[in-house]
Amino acid sequence: MFVLHPQLEADTLPLMNLKVSTVLLMNDCRFPWIILVPQLENIREITDIPEELSATFYEEMKSVVKIVQSTFTAEKINIGALGNKVPQFHFHIIARFSTDEAWPNAVWGHGIRKVYDDSQAQEIIQQIQQKLKERFHM
Amino acid sequence: MFVLHPQLEADTLPLMNLKVSTVLLMNDCRFPWIILVPQLENIREITDIPEELSATFYEEMKSVVKIVQSTFTAEKINIGALGNKVPQFHFHIIARFSTDEAWPNAVWGHGIRKVYDDSQAQEIIQQIQQKLKERFHM
Repeated sequence: MFVLHPQLEADTLPLMNLKVSTVLLMNDCRFPWIILVPQLENIREITDIPEELSATFYEEMKSVVKIVQSTFTAEKINIGALGNKVPQFHFHIIARFSTDEAWPNAVWGHGIRKVYDDSQAQEIIQQIQQKLKERFHM
Repeated sequence: MFVLHPQLEADTLPLMNLKVSTVLLMNDCRFPWIILVPQLENIREITDIPEELSATFYEEMKSVVKIVQSTFTAEKINIGALGNKVPQFHFHIIARFSTDEAWPNAVWGHGIRKVYDDSQAQEIIQQIQQKLKERFHM
């Protein structure tokens, strides 16, 4: 049974469950930042996703990249999966701007997370949920 | 016409050209680190790879992840594409160890690159080329 890692649960706000991934908003208002977690047990690397679900994960990932680009008018998208600290496989999709506080460096490990205020979070969540619904016909 | 970005050319050693990607070894002996660059003009994001080549890129990426895992007996693989400094799309696949000098942080921006000596580079290049040839029947 899939259970979201407690660190991911603590750091994020839920957006939607797709066929393979649960889509999470990193609760850090410094960077528009989505995390995809395959809803499967014991996935540590991208190559652990079973072959029959791997292409769907890739399509979900690319769709979320496009949604993040269009929602935030990102100058650059950063994508990646590290898992050095949280072993459950999770894939980052981050909108970057030459004006953001970590630019041009990676966001991982940069400074202190700053949570959204409620209304700001709700606005972003609704925007992204709407685009996910349109994209995935849900 | 595809031309490798001069920064990538300066920082890497060539390994092999696959159908979509040219495979490069980051010339940094601190971390076993492969870079895939789609041999296409004007690709900045993963979503810029044309639909008809995108699945092949993904298969190449996953194959190289497996090769890096098995060649270096990696504890963890870090993958990602940033492009905040070098705009030509390039995808990182890095073998990580709890004993490496950046662990558990990301390698990007960590310390100073340390080049391989020639014999060490040749050994790694031959090992990886052999596995790429086997995998891709070249």
